[in-house]
Amino acid sequence: MPTPPATPAPIHFYFDFSSPYSYLASERIEELAARSGRALAFHPTLLGVIFRTSGMRPLTEIPLKGDYSRRDFTRSARFAGVPLRMPEVFPISTVQAARSCLALQESRPDLVAAFIHRAFRAYFADGLDISKTAVLHDQLVQCGADAAAVLEATQSAAIKDRLKACVDDSIARGVFGAPYFIVDGEPFWGFDRLPQLERWLTSGPF
Amino acid sequence: MPTPPATPAPIHFYFDFSSPYSYLASERIEELAARSGRALAFHPTLLGVIFRTSGMRPLTEIPLKGDYSRRDFTRSARFAGVPLRMPEVFPISTVQAARSCLALQESRPDLVAAFIHRAFRAYFADGLDISKTAVLHDQLVQCGADAAAVLEATQSAAIKDRLKACVDDSIARGVFGAPYFIVDGEPFWGFDRLPQLERWLTSGPF
Repeated sequence: MPTPPATPAPIHFYFDFSSPYSYLASERIEELAARSGRALAFHPTLLGVIFRTSGMRPLTEIPLKGDYSRRDFTRSARFAGVPLRMPEVFPISTVQAARSCLALQESRPDLVAAFIHRAFRAYFADGLDISKTAVLHDQLVQCGADAAAVLEATQSAAIKDRLKACVDDSIARGVFGAPYFIVDGEPFWGFDRLPQLERWLTSGPF
Repeated sequence: MPTPPATPAPIHFYFDFSSPYSYLASERIEELAARSGRALAFHPTLLGVIFRTSGMRPLTEIPLKGDYSRRDFTRSARFAGVPLRMPEVFPISTVQAARSCLALQESRPDLVAAFIHRAFRAYFADGLDISKTAVLHDQLVQCGADAAAVLEATQSAAIKDRLKACVDDSIARGVFGAPYFIVDGEPFWGFDRLPQLERWLTSGPF
């Protein structure tokens, strides 16, 4: 019998809802995946936990680099043509948004991508604080989800454990920042590595 | 009398001879400057001093990020088409190379660009340890410089003070890493920001 054609591995996309460069990547990665014939696997993670583990600090808290970064966030967004307005409260806890994402992956996988975009845009384009349950509720409704059920699931032991496992898994795979992509074992860190990721996918390893 | 046309400000290029991304930028920045009708001002600085001041650590010493960075150095070089082989000894002291650069700026400004390229390529393409005086001597000779005179100047109080002033100036201007570019007051950090720098120069601020 002929060997069935191998399905190419997906692009693994690790992100944190409070990461501006993750937001920019989220606005471009689906087109890139489509152009290269790959599926996308979404992996919410928590930079706060990752930074505590690695002894790093959030970009905006580092002297000099912090000021530059705030300028670079918005300039990179304009360069990419993605609407971004830095939120007044930044960074925020993204635990509940990440858990909502995981709850949807179980109950309504068809809504996951729409929710990820809605949550990112709510925070980085509309200035809404998605760490607040009421705000998350609205975004879930706008995606067509059963918001109450999803938010209830975020308080269940199963979903709490699921997020812990996701964060542990990202750390085990070497994810030290976000956005972070892994494809066929090759890691790419940062929105500014999408051109390299695309060449890797379309022309092969280089 | 008509106002003479204003000369556009140069692209200020801050670099450390031990920084792989500075090397990559050094191989591309002159073409970019030429395309945008700007002069280049070379500013050797010392990442070791900058990191001590800001409380940062060299990239390769950070857990997880260090391993990724070593992979990214060479992949970014291949992506850009620049020959790079990570040196066995890395990082190295670049004090004497930086002072040689400053000594040449005074005695033979016409050789500065050639020396910068030679020193970077010696270290990152040819695997030569440019922290060693004998190696620096050879590179200076290859550039057509009076190597003995330049190396003697690197031990003078004037050139030592000059480098201290250069490093202090870079820190005062917010340079927290390398390569770092400032043009018309706008800062760009990293080899991966050259596309933004180029758009800024050719189409104006965005």
